[in-house]
Amino acid sequence: MTKFDEATQAIRVDETTYDVCLDPGYSIAGMLNGGYLMAVMLRAVVDASPYDHPVSTAAQFLRSPRPGPARVRLERLKTGRTVAMTRATLMQDDTAYIETLVTTATLAGGPSEWTGEPAVAMPPVEECVALPEPKPESGMTFNAQVENLFDPPTIGWFTGSPSGRMESRAYFRMVEPQDPDPFILAMAVDALPPVVFSAGARGWSPTVELTWHLRALPAPGRLKVYGHGRLMRDGWFDEDVEVWDSEGNLVAQSRQLARLGRG
Amino acid sequence: MTKFDEATQAIRVDETTYDVCLDPGYSIAGMLNGGYLMAVMLRAVVDASPYDHPVSTAAQFLRSPRPGPARVRLERLKTGRTVAMTRATLMQDDTAYIETLVTTATLAGGPSEWTGEPAVAMPPVEECVALPEPKPESGMTFNAQVENLFDPPTIGWFTGSPSGRMESRAYFRMVEPQDPDPFILAMAVDALPPVVFSAGARGWSPTVELTWHLRALPAPGRLKVYGHGRLMRDGWFDEDVEVWDSEGNLVAQSRQLARLGRG
Repeated sequence: MTKFDEATQAIRVDETTYDVCLDPGYSIAGMLNGGYLMAVMLRAVVDASPYDHPVSTAAQFLRSPRPGPARVRLERLKTGRTVAMTRATLMQDDTAYIETLVTTATLAGGPSEWTGEPAVAMPPVEECVALPEPKPESGMTFNAQVENLFDPPTIGWFTGSPSGRMESRAYFRMVEPQDPDPFILAMAVDALPPVVFSAGARGWSPTVELTWHLRALPAPGRLKVYGHGRLMRDGWFDEDVEVWDSEGNLVAQSRQLARLGRG
Repeated sequence: MTKFDEATQAIRVDETTYDVCLDPGYSIAGMLNGGYLMAVMLRAVVDASPYDHPVSTAAQFLRSPRPGPARVRLERLKTGRTVAMTRATLMQDDTAYIETLVTTATLAGGPSEWTGEPAVAMPPVEECVALPEPKPESGMTFNAQVENLFDPPTIGWFTGSPSGRMESRAYFRMVEPQDPDPFILAMAVDALPPVVFSAGARGWSPTVELTWHLRALPAPGRLKVYGHGRLMRDGWFDEDVEVWDSEGNLVAQSRQLARLGRG
């Protein structure tokens, strides 16, 4: 069992309750990463579902949970011939922290019937670069779990030269070797620095809502993660992420609505 | 009061219950349009919220409700200084038909800080065209409420010449004159023929999940609705819609995951 699999374990208490333990090793600036938290919740949802794959997850981030014990509460909304629909809530101290609506189904693994190309080409991995290791006191423990190698212009903000567009792109894989799966994809869609950094914004950017769709099971190897956004306005921004696998398949899509940092 | 405002009325019973009446005039192939149903639910959510605007709505379509009386059941999940978060459920005969997670806030109406351009240019409205009136027996009553004038290549499928891409674009307005508002936007994001028709697919394409974000209040005038998709695979497709107002502002974004028709 990998560290990630262990950190996302969900232990069945009964058909509507799972015990989980939120791992402090997945924090960004001291707050647990939203993608990691979705992965934990989806372990419970998939375990309780007659279907194998979380094809759609809409998450509303109410509050930031603390590391430590928590529960996932499930409510089955529909069990159909093709899909099951579940409301899942992350609870800590009898308070709801994250609400999700999840659709599970079993993806057949057939070929794609039509697919568009990524809007922007990604350079080869050899031309991509890591950000420096964060300082221990920064609370960026998440960075020790995942390896992001960035398309260089999209981290120009780090050296004071933002690209001037809402964008963020990287090759992604786990530091501990592990083939990608739907739970890792839940994390990959929320694993890059906010796309607004490239457009000149700074500071903590809390996600309010994030919806992602699993489109195919990823092949082994690094993932390509393409992030962009369309609008910063009234303190809000959107971030759209596509994840492509090593065989050139679009495997996940997400969009989140987040608050602009005041940093 | 316009016909649309009347058809989307939500009458407060108590703080968690609203009575609504689902209007048969918003059907597509005999099924009530998902965007219309979201508009009805959002009337209740906004009425009960301390904030003015539904900035984020994630909807899971469990079942197709029938025209006639229904209820919207609300559960307030969080009331913060900037946002309120609500679970809203469309009920008929004590059964849940649509589950939503809605975030309300009050948009300040400030200028955009950064915005990307639409990926594809729309021709002037004079060069766009309507589809023929549907036959009465087709159950397409929705078409009498909205006027879509299409970018011609994106309705090539109608005359047997699909463009070969997942796309659908149109100028949109209500047939009965009415300035666009957030409730009309809820409908606009689900008002075009499925983007897969342009890629050669046919038949009824039920929406499983749709999330949309309100980004700004729309100016009066026609809306430009840009729809595209990225992948048809394993019986599923995505449809991404951007709505721009007459003053060139991005006002709404949506993505839905839907089933491919077997038509």
